[in-house]
Amino acid sequence: MRARVHITLKTGVLDPQGKAICHALEALGFEGVTDARQGKVIEIDLVEEDPTKAREQVDEMCRKLLANTVIENYVIDLD
Amino acid sequence: MRARVHITLKTGVLDPQGKAICHALEALGFEGVTDARQGKVIEIDLVEEDPTKAREQVDEMCRKLLANTVIENYVIDLD
Repeated sequence: MRARVHITLKTGVLDPQGKAICHALEALGFEGVTDARQGKVIEIDLVEEDPTKAREQVDEMCRKLLANTVIENYVIDLD
Repeated sequence: MRARVHITLKTGVLDPQGKAICHALEALGFEGVTDARQGKVIEIDLVEEDPTKAREQVDEMCRKLLANTVIENYVIDLD
């Protein structure tokens, strides 16, 4: 089973990468961009085939390693 | 309109971040992880409201700035 974890910065947390993208797009002549934010996607291949157990396992991985829950939110999608 | 761009490494391209995640999960005692890959998500807020035009615009941004098309694939989702 494959899990996809989307990790994004919480609202209000400064996102320098997003700001850099915004400015670079403007410098390249792209108009009409009001904001940009950058996050991470982590794809994990699991042996576990039970969706409930897989989700629990990935949730624990997020809390222990993948996401910094002080400043980041995460969403888990299972395929 | 908001566009979300998923950028992932092409198959066969070495992914050291993914490998590091894989090893770290193993070291933390998580079993049954066969592979991990890391990619990026970029969320862009656009003034453009027409989906076709917005997609064209974001596609050009990807080719010119956001993705390295030699080693990366990108997928554009519009909300």
